[in-house]
This record gives sequence, structure tokens and C-alpha cells, in this order.
Amino acid sequence: MKLTGLNFIGNKRSGSGSKTFKAVNPDNEEEFGPEYLEATEDEINQAVEQAESAFLEYREKNGTEKAEFLEAIADEILALGDQLIDRCMSETGLPKGRLEGERGRTVGQLKLFADILREGSWVDARIDTVNSDSSIKSMKMALGPVGIFGASNFPLAFSVAGGDTASALAAGCTIVVKAHPAHPGTSEMVANAIDKAVKKTSMPAGTFNMVHGPSNDVGKTIVKNPLIKAIGFTGSFAGGKAIFDAAVNRPEPIPVYAEMSSGNPVFLLPGALKEKQDDIAEGLTNSVNLGIGQFCTKPGLVFYEDSDEAEKFLTKVRERFKKTQTGTMLTKGIYTAYKKGVDELLQQEGVQLVAQSEKNGSPNTVIAHLLKVSSDSFLSNELLEEEVFGPATLTISVKDKKNLVKVAENLQGHLTASLFGTKEDLDSYSDLIAVLQRKVGRLIFNGYPTGVAVNHAMIHGGPFPATTDSRTTSVGSSAIDRFVRPVCFQNFPDNQLPAELKDDNPANIWRLIDGERKK
Amino acid sequence: MKLTGLNFIGNKRSGSGSKTFKAVNPDNEEEFGPEYLEATEDEINQAVEQAESAFLEYREKNGTEKAEFLEAIADEILALGDQLIDRCMSETGLPKGRLEGERGRTVGQLKLFADILREGSWVDARIDTVNSDSSIKSMKMALGPVGIFGASNFPLAFSVAGGDTASALAAGCTIVVKAHPAHPGTSEMVANAIDKAVKKTSMPAGTFNMVHGPSNDVGKTIVKNPLIKAIGFTGSFAGGKAIFDAAVNRPEPIPVYAEMSSGNPVFLLPGALKEKQDDIAEGLTNSVNLGIGQFCTKPGLVFYEDSDEAEKFLTKVRERFKKTQTGTMLTKGIYTAYKKGVDELLQQEGVQLVAQSEKNGSPNTVIAHLLKVSSDSFLSNELLEEEVFGPATLTISVKDKKNLVKVAENLQGHLTASLFGTKEDLDSYSDLIAVLQRKVGRLIFNGYPTGVAVNHAMIHGGPFPATTDSRTTSVGSSAIDRFVRPVCFQNFPDNQLPAELKDDNPANIWRLIDGERKK
Repeated sequence: MKLTGLNFIGNKRSGSGSKTFKAVNPDNEEEFGPEYLEATEDEINQAVEQAESAFLEYREKNGTEKAEFLEAIADEILALGDQLIDRCMSETGLPKGRLEGERGRTVGQLKLFADILREGSWVDARIDTVNSDSSIKSMKMALGPVGIFGASNFPLAFSVAGGDTASALAAGCTIVVKAHPAHPGTSEMVANAIDKAVKKTSMPAGTFNMVHGPSNDVGKTIVKNPLIKAIGFTGSFAGGKAIFDAAVNRPEPIPVYAEMSSGNPVFLLPGALKEKQDDIAEGLTNSVNLGIGQFCTKPGLVFYEDSDEAEKFLTKVRERFKKTQTGTMLTKGIYTAYKKGVDELLQQEGVQLVAQSEKNGSPNTVIAHLLKVSSDSFLSNELLEEEVFGPATLTISVKDKKNLVKVAENLQGHLTASLFGTKEDLDSYSDLIAVLQRKVGRLIFNGYPTGVAVNHAMIHGGPFPATTDSRTTSVGSSAIDRFVRPVCFQNFPDNQLPAELKDDNPANIWRLIDGERKK
Repeated sequence: MKLTGLNFIGNKRSGSGSKTFKAVNPDNEEEFGPEYLEATEDEINQAVEQAESAFLEYREKNGTEKAEFLEAIADEILALGDQLIDRCMSETGLPKGRLEGERGRTVGQLKLFADILREGSWVDARIDTVNSDSSIKSMKMALGPVGIFGASNFPLAFSVAGGDTASALAAGCTIVVKAHPAHPGTSEMVANAIDKAVKKTSMPAGTFNMVHGPSNDVGKTIVKNPLIKAIGFTGSFAGGKAIFDAAVNRPEPIPVYAEMSSGNPVFLLPGALKEKQDDIAEGLTNSVNLGIGQFCTKPGLVFYEDSDEAEKFLTKVRERFKKTQTGTMLTKGIYTAYKKGVDELLQQEGVQLVAQSEKNGSPNTVIAHLLKVSSDSFLSNELLEEEVFGPATLTISVKDKKNLVKVAENLQGHLTASLFGTKEDLDSYSDLIAVLQRKVGRLIFNGYPTGVAVNHAMIHGGPFPATTDSRTTSVGSSAIDRFVRPVCFQNFPDNQLPAELKDDNPANIWRLIDGERKK
């Protein structure tokens, strides 16, 4: 496929701006073509207008039609074959196996949403005939054009055709994607795949749009356009919070689903430290270093009570960290931020370096860091809870159970919390579990937070600052709820109602009829 | 019942402040006792802390326990008998029949939530065992302490034990209510009823708290307390927007459900104007004047195409407006704002006075106003779309169908839109319906927006500026979703899971098991 460097505005490929940038191979810091054209303000607003006019038609598509569209996107992505993986490897430094797996995840996400669209009950259709003079019927309907910000660390699964795109399109929204400048070619290839699927399934031009640009202005222009009705974002706290602030302070505030930063605390309970020391030392080291620590679910905080077992455990983790093979980070910026983050941590009172891996000479290749601090120091310094994106983790020794609960109570919001323990541990730490339920979106027992299954029950979200909206998830089928709102029809004739609300239930979906779940 | 004028802080009655105020009878502008003590900053924060510590216990209550609590509140409100109605009449000027009806609605709301708590499926329990290495289970859980702002215009149904209170308590949240200063005695009586129910059903002290005060600082102190996790509000645009801005700009932003202002546009289609002219003239006049126009669903904008029939219709409405009996408004402030709002409207270019009712001499008694403007003037002046709270409505003549759709496209968000027409009208105005679906929370065919049924399908909400969060409703059982977020449990032993997620489904609720709805 010949890459053009252009923006996707409805039917058009457009490049009227003068600012350009190129992809950079993080392995050797070499730029490579083509030149990408940062979208101008005018082009961005055109893209939003295309999304708006397409929305008027796209929102009328039924579940089967939208499912076929999502499946066609999946097919077209697979049809890109190795050229997608090769380009993506050059742009991200990520290994082939990982990217092939991520492509599978991306395709799987699209198919999961296709499944729930075909089934149809997700609209939460409700009909009341008893408690009113006239029929009251409601269901969820699409919000309108949505702005989506691709993430750097999942160039396929959280990018142009990632979870936000899949859930927004499933909901019936049209989209304007801001491609992540760290993988513009991958983005263009996937955009082409979506564009082919748009045509193949006769969706309106403008259902999908994509603009390029490393500058913050590109994103801000999307957020500020009054036709945009919601935002999906995965990235840094600074980036997500800036978008949130811009969106809620618009004349018309809109929902922002920003998944930002998380320390993913791990709690090692006494029984587990005794019985499964080696397993956990191995598993934790792997989880911290998976993908060079560039996962939003990387365990960055590890709590345990002081004990001889804990000391032995830490020694075992230390040995493993020393031998860790790390690799190239996604971008020079991420590499630099990681080094700065670790340096900053090491300057904080009480923080000690327990182990680091060996450095090899390649550019942007980092060292894994295992750090240590007491719970007193941790409790007195907010900075220690901040995410350091990359293969570093901070272990925090706590005096006793009471203090373990106390540090948990003082945690801010995170995506996940993991507990390692025996079943007896869990029973005697139920107060800790109760505390953590308020702090995270997902609680894991004897498992690592990295690896987020894509299914109906998954919640990838959590209280601020993990996300800007804890009421939703960015992974799993209930993510579709982020891009809809309920609309109520009172006393409407059957022929004017959407299929989901018609009397004879032609969509054959589960509905709440006078409070009872029926099909 | 002897009223004390004190604030409700957990178990305590507290009045440590020095600022006081009294209830005012709007019929004669006389103040009457007792003296109410505005809560101090310290008292407000104590109330929030009580709500926080109660939450740790209250959130563990099961559906039956919470249902019994809500039902006990309903019983205690009814047990107040006529003294509640009498006090409320003196504080609001609202007639006995209306307040008795509103009490019924308030009790009905509490019982509706009790029903869904007993049934239990509202938690949206989801279990996945197939698409993951370990079991993934999720359900909705309470957010934490919630701040609730009582409204002036529904002193029972949208106040201390109103919809927000019922849905937040049902969700498992504890609450701090800011009593509306226009009905402090009514608020205290209802607070006493809730307090009795707390004790009767052994709920933790601090589950319910209430603070008084006319000053904006009282509300701001609630919103800014970091322990508060969501806000429910019904009132003016200025009030709601100020609370929204404060809440989203906190260090930890929180959801704000503010129901603020709505013009509730009515569209009179040609067939209806021909066939049902008299009915609609009568019904519309009644709907505008119901409760002296002090409903958030009052139809404030009436659109129709120019025609002889339309002229005849307007004449009929005019005759009815002239003969309208209006009454006392809720407060002097609301009376003054109404007069100012109508005066401002009349000063706008193109706005004509069509009819007004006769004034009687009592204080705070207003005149109903029927106004008229062309669609060109309407489209060029945003101020004409703003809500005037009270018995005024603006009719807008539009040249033709095309222009009717155009004015609809230019509308901002409203709670409702009503269409009057024959079935043939609806068929030929489907483009208008499509436009209105994006503008409102509820679309009504041949009915008036006033009168909001409380059931499972009702949506009382809509796009900004009608509310600050169009994804929810403030009336109906799905309002419970506003005060929860999903929490996911991965690989947890059955005995550590909430009943709703246990393998054998002891709560006997509908769940989504590997994507299938099952009981």
C-alpha cells in the first residue's frame, strides 16, 4: 500500500497545511517517509462537519448493518497482512508477536461489538403502559459525532480502529480520530481499511474521519467544535486532563472518557508471601516488564507487611530484575519521561534502588528499576503514587495489617488493584477488599493486572485520576454505553417508533416491560 | 411536631452558626418561625464526614434492607399527615390538592425504587468465564456520599425526600441534602421522617444529613468537599451551572446531575391545527398555567406554520389566556424574576404581546402572558429561547415546513418536545422527529409536557442546557444509575463476592452470563 501522509475527511484525502512530520524508528532514531501533513484548523472542522452530516444517516442503520460494517473493518485490517505489522514494528519498536496478538485483539473487539449489535438488547429498551395515561417507551440512542484520540502504546487495539472507535461506531456515532503521531503510517493503513469497509458496506462518507498532527492544537480544535458530542482518549494524565478541562468548560460541556494514569497497586498478603514466593517474584517481574512496562495496567506499587518472608521475597525479585532483558521504548519522548520519572523517584526521601537491569547500548533502550520505600515515606509524599510509565515498580513495606489498610484508604483512584493471598488471607483481609472496591475499577485475586480480557464483564476504568469518568469502561462490550443517551417516546404511534420499541418486538430483544424483563 | 430550625448532622441536631432566616408566606409576605440556622462551613463538613462514615456500613445493606428503609421513609412522610401539607402550603403558596398529589408522587417514587431493589437486577451483573483465563465478574456499586440540592417548585417530590434522595439511597449512597430555603419547615418535617426511618430500620446514623442556608456558600462547601462523589440538583440554569463548574474543576472532578432549564418546544402540525384547534387551545393554556407555570416542563415555545387555521387557533388561545386565573408564585424572588423575564422578552425585536390575564391585588400574584414572534426574529435572537419560569409562553410563526425543521435544527437542548398532529402529520414530518430526537430527552405525541409519569421507562433529562448530563434521568427507576459505577472482580473466590455475583445466583436476578441474559 502506498502511504500518502494525508488526512481523511469524508471521501477526500486532504493535505492543505504546511506543517509536516515523519515517523521515527525508535530503534535507530531514523525518520522515514512519507511526510505526514498536520491537519489545519479548517481541515479539522471540515472533518467534524463530515462526521455530523454522516451521522444523520449513519444513526439510522440497524444492528445488523452496523455489525456488518464492524466485521468488514476487521476483515480489511486482516487483509493488510504483514505490511501492517512491518510498518507498525518500524514505528513503535514493538516485536512482531506482540503486534500480531494486538491485531487479534483489535479484530476481536470489533467482532464483540458486532455480536452485541446483532443481539440488540444493549439499547435497554423500556416500555411502561401501566403507570401512565399514555405509553412511555425509552431506549438508548447515539450522541452524535465523537472525537477519538489514539494512544501510543497500543498502536492497533487503542488506536485508529481500537476500542473507542469500535464502541462509538457500534453505538451509532460517527467519528473523528486524532491519529497518534508516533505511528502515522500504521494509522493511515488502518484508516484505509476502515474507509474500504465504509464503502463496502455502503456507510455514509464521513462516518469515519482521521486527522494527523503532533501539535496539541489539533486535539483542541476537535474538542472545541460544538458538533462534537463526546471524547474518547487514552494517554497521559496531562493530556487527558487538558482535554477534559477544555471539554467541560465549553459553552456546551460534553462527556470525556479519558483513561489516563494508574499505579495498579498490588497487595501481597502474608499467606501468599509464604507459600508462593517464587511464583509471585517471577510473575510480578514479568508483569512489570511486559511490553517494556508500557501498559496502563503495569503494577507500579507493591505493598506488603514487614517480615522475613517479605525480605526473602524482595531478594528474589531483585535477582530477577537484574537479569531482565528490556528493550526499546515507543518513542524518544516516552524514553526520556521514564528516565526523568525514575530519577525523580530516586530523589524522594526514603526511596531506595533495590535493583536495576543492565543497559544495552541501543537508543531508547531503558533499564528496569525495582525501588523500595517505607509506608511512612509513601504516605507523606503524593508524588510516590504517580505513575512512572515504563518498567519500574515501587515496593512499599508496611508495618502491619492495620497500616496496610491505612495506605489503601489513602490511595487515589487506579484502574486495578491486585491481591495475592491464600483464601484464608482473603477472609482475614476483607476490610482491605472493602477499601479497594472504592479505589479501582477492577480487583484481581492472585493474578496480574496486565492482560485485560475483552468480554462483556470487563471493566477497564476507575476513579479519578485513573479516568475522568468512573461510570464506564474503555474495554469490553459495555463501553458502548459511553456514546449514547436515553430518549423517551410518549404516546407515539407504533410506526413512528424504532424497531426496538415497537409493540411486537420485531428486533426480538430483551426489554423491560412494566418493570419485568421480557423477550 | 415542634420545629427546631437546626441542621441534621448524623445523630445530632446542630445550630452553631449565627446567620438565621425564616420561612416567608408568599401569599402575604409575612415571615414565620422558627428561626432557621444557616449551617457553618464546619457543620457542613461534619455532615459530609458523617455521610462518609455511614457509607462504609450503608453500602453493605442488601436490596431488601434498603427497600425497607425507603418504604419506612414513605410511611413516615404519610404519618406526618395534614401538618406537613399545612406547613408546606404556608411556605409555598401551593394549594392543598396539588401538595397532596405531590406527596403521593413522593411516596410513589420511594416505593418504585424499593421495588427495583427487591427485584435486584438493576445492578447489571455480568459474568464471563469463556473469553478469559479467569472468571471476570462485574456489577454496579455505589459511588459514595452524594450532595443533593432540593428544588423550590416541588417542595416534596424534588426536595428533601425527592427523586434524587430516593435514587441515591437506593443506589447505596449516603446523602447530604441542602434544604431549599423557600420551604425550611417542610424540609425539617421531611428530614425528621427520614431520620425516624433511619432509626426504625437500623440504618447507620449519617446515612441522611441535611443543612440549611440561603447562601450560595452552603452549596459550594458541599460540592468542594472531597468526600462528596456526585451531585444531584434541580433548579435554575445559573445555580446548576455554577455547581457544575465548581464540581468539574475540583482537584477530583465528580459527576453533576443538574436539571436546569427548558423551553419544552411544542410543534403544532397542520392536521392537528385543523382538526383539534379547540382542544389544543384549551390544553395548551392549561399546561402553561398549571402550577402558575412553575414546572420545568412548562411549554414555553410553541411553533406552527403560518395559516388561517393558525390565526384562528391563536385567537382561541388568546381568549383563554385573558380569562386565566393565576395565583401566587413560590417566592418573591421567583415572582420578580418572572416579571423581569417577561419584560425582557417584550423588549426584544419583533416580540408582541398577544394576551395577558387580569391581575388580582395579592402580593406575588402574576399575570399569564401569551407572546408572539416570527421565526426570523426567533432565529436571530438566542435570548428568545431562554426559559422564563412562570405562566408565559412564546408562540413562533414559521413560514413553511422547511422552516419548521430549520428552527428545530437550531434549538438547543430541552427536556421535552411535543408534537400535535394527525397520524398523517407524523408521517410527513418524520424529518422533524429525527431532528428533535437529538434535542430532547422526551418526545411527546398529542400530549402536554407537564405531568411526568414516574415509572421504569420515563426519561426526565436532555441535552445541555436542559441538564448537565444527558446520559441520565432524574425521574423514573433508571435514575439509580446516576449514583453507581461498575466494579469488576477477577478470579475472586465465590465467598468474597457480593450475592449478585455468586455462582448460584442467590439474589435470583437477571444477569449477563457470557453475553446471554439469564436468571
